[in-house]
Amino acid sequence: MEIGIVGATGYGGVELFRLLSSYPGIDSINLYSSTQSGEFFQELYSHVNNEQYTLQDLNPDKMSKQLDIIFLATPAGVSSELTPKLLEGKAKVIDLSGDLRLKDSRTYTNWYKKEAAIQSVLEKAVYGLPEWNKEAIQSAKVIANPGCFPTATLLGLAPVMNEQLADPKRIIIDAKSGISGAGKNASPVTHFANTQENFRIYKVNQHQHIPEIEQQLKIWNSETNPITFSTHLVPMTRGIMATIYVELLESRSLEELIKLYQKVYENQPFVRIRKAGDFPCTRDVYASNYCDIGLTLDERTGRVTIVAVIDNLMKGAASQAVQNMNLVLGNDESTGLHQVPVYP
Amino acid sequence: MEIGIVGATGYGGVELFRLLSSYPGIDSINLYSSTQSGEFFQELYSHVNNEQYTLQDLNPDKMSKQLDIIFLATPAGVSSELTPKLLEGKAKVIDLSGDLRLKDSRTYTNWYKKEAAIQSVLEKAVYGLPEWNKEAIQSAKVIANPGCFPTATLLGLAPVMNEQLADPKRIIIDAKSGISGAGKNASPVTHFANTQENFRIYKVNQHQHIPEIEQQLKIWNSETNPITFSTHLVPMTRGIMATIYVELLESRSLEELIKLYQKVYENQPFVRIRKAGDFPCTRDVYASNYCDIGLTLDERTGRVTIVAVIDNLMKGAASQAVQNMNLVLGNDESTGLHQVPVYP
Amino acid sequence: MEIGIVGATGYGGVELFRLLSSYPGIDSINLYSSTQSGEFFQELYSHVNNEQYTLQDLNPDKMSKQLDIIFLATPAGVSSELTPKLLEGKAKVIDLSGDLRLKDSRTYTNWYKKEAAIQSVLEKAVYGLPEWNKEAIQSAKVIANPGCFPTATLLGLAPVMNEQLADPKRIIIDAKSGISGAGKNASPVTHFANTQENFRIYKVNQHQHIPEIEQQLKIWNSETNPITFSTHLVPMTRGIMATIYVELLESRSLEELIKLYQKVYENQPFVRIRKAGDFPCTRDVYASNYCDIGLTLDERTGRVTIVAVIDNLMKGAASQAVQNMNLVLGNDESTGLHQVPVYP
Amino acid sequence: MEIGIVGATGYGGVELFRLLSSYPGIDSINLYSSTQSGEFFQELYSHVNNEQYTLQDLNPDKMSKQLDIIFLATPAGVSSELTPKLLEGKAKVIDLSGDLRLKDSRTYTNWYKKEAAIQSVLEKAVYGLPEWNKEAIQSAKVIANPGCFPTATLLGLAPVMNEQLADPKRIIIDAKSGISGAGKNASPVTHFANTQENFRIYKVNQHQHIPEIEQQLKIWNSETNPITFSTHLVPMTRGIMATIYVELLESRSLEELIKLYQKVYENQPFVRIRKAGDFPCTRDVYASNYCDIGLTLDERTGRVTIVAVIDNLMKGAASQAVQNMNLVLGNDESTGLHQVPVYP
Repeated sequence: MEIGIVGATGYGGVELFRLLSSYPGIDSINLYSSTQSGEFFQELYSHVNNEQYTLQDLNPDKMSKQLDIIFLATPAGVSSELTPKLLEGKAKVIDLSGDLRLKDSRTYTNWYKKEAAIQSVLEKAVYGLPEWNKEAIQSAKVIANPGCFPTATLLGLAPVMNEQLADPKRIIIDAKSGISGAGKNASPVTHFANTQENFRIYKVNQHQHIPEIEQQLKIWNSETNPITFSTHLVPMTRGIMATIYVELLESRSLEELIKLYQKVYENQPFVRIRKAGDFPCTRDVYASNYCDIGLTLDERTGRVTIVAVIDNLMKGAASQAVQNMNLVLGNDESTGLHQVPVYP
Repeated sequence: MEIGIVGATGYGGVELFRLLSSYPGIDSINLYSSTQSGEFFQELYSHVNNEQYTLQDLNPDKMSKQLDIIFLATPAGVSSELTPKLLEGKAKVIDLSGDLRLKDSRTYTNWYKKEAAIQSVLEKAVYGLPEWNKEAIQSAKVIANPGCFPTATLLGLAPVMNEQLADPKRIIIDAKSGISGAGKNASPVTHFANTQENFRIYKVNQHQHIPEIEQQLKIWNSETNPITFSTHLVPMTRGIMATIYVELLESRSLEELIKLYQKVYENQPFVRIRKAGDFPCTRDVYASNYCDIGLTLDERTGRVTIVAVIDNLMKGAASQAVQNMNLVLGNDESTGLHQVPVYP
Repeated sequence: MEIGIVGATGYGGVELFRLLSSYPGIDSINLYSSTQSGEFFQELYSHVNNEQYTLQDLNPDKMSKQLDIIFLATPAGVSSELTPKLLEGKAKVIDLSGDLRLKDSRTYTNWYKKEAAIQSVLEKAVYGLPEWNKEAIQSAKVIANPGCFPTATLLGLAPVMNEQLADPKRIIIDAKSGISGAGKNASPVTHFANTQENFRIYKVNQHQHIPEIEQQLKIWNSETNPITFSTHLVPMTRGIMATIYVELLESRSLEELIKLYQKVYENQPFVRIRKAGDFPCTRDVYASNYCDIGLTLDERTGRVTIVAVIDNLMKGAASQAVQNMNLVLGNDESTGLHQVPVYP
Repeated sequence: MEIGIVGATGYGGVELFRLLSSYPGIDSINLYSSTQSGEFFQELYSHVNNEQYTLQDLNPDKMSKQLDIIFLATPAGVSSELTPKLLEGKAKVIDLSGDLRLKDSRTYTNWYKKEAAIQSVLEKAVYGLPEWNKEAIQSAKVIANPGCFPTATLLGLAPVMNEQLADPKRIIIDAKSGISGAGKNASPVTHFANTQENFRIYKVNQHQHIPEIEQQLKIWNSETNPITFSTHLVPMTRGIMATIYVELLESRSLEELIKLYQKVYENQPFVRIRKAGDFPCTRDVYASNYCDIGLTLDERTGRVTIVAVIDNLMKGAASQAVQNMNLVLGNDESTGLHQVPVYP
């Protein structure tokens, strides 16, 4: 089996490389970079072992024939162009960018300020949220790997939305992310002295993950209204927490709600539901593929608070992509993903 | 002028000491500790200069006669007992704990799980939010200095609540705090390895600051319903951000809202309102008495998001107490509080 | 194969559990705790998966017969007592504490302020630094796993000491460690607010790892004098850097020195030598078993600066213990240790 | 009194602005920037209060006549050009860059890789280490404010060097600094994800502060040899620790050494000496002008370890510049510098 990682020098690519390095049965990992081809990977990343990986130039024709799985860990706007060519051979494509997630190309252009992928590719692309789309993923030729915030938010909201329990007109999501979500580019926002001992809000109601969340919520409940969605920058490197506020359409006890969540996810190896009174923190899933969920019902207000945490570079990107690869290849869904979270 | 700080070895007390050390016209600062009396202050806190401060034993009788201002920076349950005695002499009391904030003693007991202060003291105690209670503070004998979360939340909500613009039945506050809010006691939660590279939620809808916020909101709008209120622990030492979600009862443009906020606070030296599209971060107010506020209106949902930041040990505790002292003494409200925030 | 971890709830034990959870061919992992037996492991550590591990009471008799490998991840003073009983059956013992490292029991008592293990066990115990003691480890019944500071220091010094190139009378080691080295107990030193944005020196020339380093240095050069050794606390969770200052007894160029290091370690899978001008940082080995070494020669002073980094919980504790287990079992030395360092 | 800050938008300039904002008796603070003139200061730095400061264009002629004190907080190479013109009027110049510190222009060029200032200015420039050069500073027209590492190192070494107690041929300094020392420019090294949970060594024996340290040491002992000097990057924003290793030429007890340090600095308001067994951490001097020093003597080796800490942006830059301004103006040396360190 031959694997390719396009955009190997970004955080998503580096994390994929780490996971695939110990994945069983891979014959070769090929690393591609449009800007740094010819360089040795470990010249750029000294944590990588001494084996020599050279960054290769992109050759979509050759790649689509040679490779079995191609991961695209590229900035917005790249995979919309690349994917049509990569799909011409035997290769299956797993796209970690946002380019193939939105079915409506105008929505993409509105939020991403870029031209969308061609319609035929958008139609072919399967939304890779394994816990809710397993069958379609298994037979997909191209997968749109979900965004980090949508993964946490959707896994947290799914049971109450799917059961039509949550008021679809009043969904408020207060999301928090570590700095790695901003990528490896140096900027004032990622400067240590501006981030350490600081807490920041950004892209209030303007994050490009909003239409992705709404698109899926509407599948579960077609009456879903636009959501309120804030993102905050936590002075840490990895981790996302989505704190979600919903109102119930029908009365339920906290015990009933937790039972619902446990039942919905009982056969999903990577979603773990907490007991009443217990909430996950981001450390609980560090460097793993887990999504941990806790919830509570406030008897004074009748509102439900749902808390979902993931590692943004893992379940929010690279390890979820490997989970999708497992499904595409017909492997056990957990292959290569048995890591216990790193603690402390 | 003679000043006393009770509970001088906690974070609030140490911060008061720092501020009062360079306050003009103080003749003596007296430090009290029930558990460590007799020890030298700089033995405990090596950052303090070499002048010798000895921690004194509590003697309410003597203190009430000798001291002009007594700050109580003590855990819940202490000032409810101490204050009646301290009020017998000339001293004025500024209480940084939660003991004197709630007018209803049953509410106090429900949330603090302790016996409340006697009714006569609760009635005398003036809620020390200077921007909204200046006159009462100026003539107060005893002041209940607001909690850190209530300070940020109330300053953020006040203009829209006071103007009856915000739906009082649907107020959601997602608050975040640095670790110093948990105090100086070592515990698993404050252990560095459990906090660094971690983001945690705690006391969901159960924080003892909830009734304090609701009490004041009801003054502004008597139809205020119970609020939804979450607190999160940010891996940093200082700083609070309250992200507040409200629905408007009447349509307003963002420009109108920002003008309202600017007008409401135009004569308040410590509240700064951001322009449209600009939000404060906690660094903007680090080690200062400022509360910075930004807001936005989402045209897709009609909801308003208000962001208020403070330094929890300053405007959320010690420097707000000094602001109250200034009012009580008839000094300029900004005396001793001209610090530019420390950056970076 | 049955494995036991004694002291499973400390950082070393938790890390061993993480590594052994994905180690091939283990039939059962047994977790022991003298203080928390009967509790579920995942009640204490919510990052651990849902499988049920119950903490067991210590029963040395049974353990020595039932288990193949017993890891002792216990505080000083425990394994000196336990080991004799654990060695009575088939079990082999790998001790992560300092109890069995020093051959001279008086030296142990001087530095650890505790009674040493009995002489027969001290004699049997093999010092588990695989890069320099492989054969003895392979046939050992009981292994003294090296301390974190000695591991980094000794791997950094070994080539120049072993070749009699470094002046054994003038060795200065300035070591730095993340907070996890202080263990999971909450204390003022591990409190986040005392550690974040702080840099601290501790145990100057008094760290109990000093005699362990000197004992091994004397094996390489019997004329080794007492070393100067400082430890500092870095505001991070994991990682150790030892900055080592030596003077050369014979002139060598930097190229010659680097070639020496490369040659000495060329068959050691977990030691990586940097090129001239390049130094490792602690991130380069995060959550891995690597020790990365860089060095330079100052032509102005003739002194050599050697920099060695490890993850203190991995190569400095748990993963080095697994490396030792591999040697004891006759497995490939890298089994279960192929992790690429976590980045970022 | 009119003050100018050139390079007002860098960390040194911002810190000067903060300190001078509450300095008594200043009529106007003028901020200059060659790249951002015309912009409002608080557009760039939202922590600054609402008063309007506009960044001005550099006009050396006008500045030298209008201003009483000009601070140069500029990158290397700027003040060597600017200073001659600025000295033509009444203004006195305090240069925070390295341009005027080295008396020998070839040494400057060797280490800074830039052309040195003209000889007449280098001769006029007084090295602004107040504790050791007070008289010369008081009558200076232009002051070379010391570098951050030299300040900590020299204050730590001065007593034993000045008394000819330390072997001048064997001085080893292991220095550590927070990230703000690298300035505000965004780069891979200052990226949060590369710095958080990481510890890094850099410029081993190559830091441009080395000749500055050696120049002063030679004043104290002309037989001083080149020093060994390493710098490390600590994952924190502010703070420097210099751990200094020296050998004694004559035997002294620790008590004698500490008495010497106490005596040498007894009239210096900003140097604090710790008792035997006690060492300062960087928090102890946070956001203050203090330099705290602790030391110990290892009886096993006879070597002395000296630890000196400062806040690199304060005593290592801005507040030391204000201390020098005080001396130049004939004010009390502590004017405007009474800040108690910020804790926690």
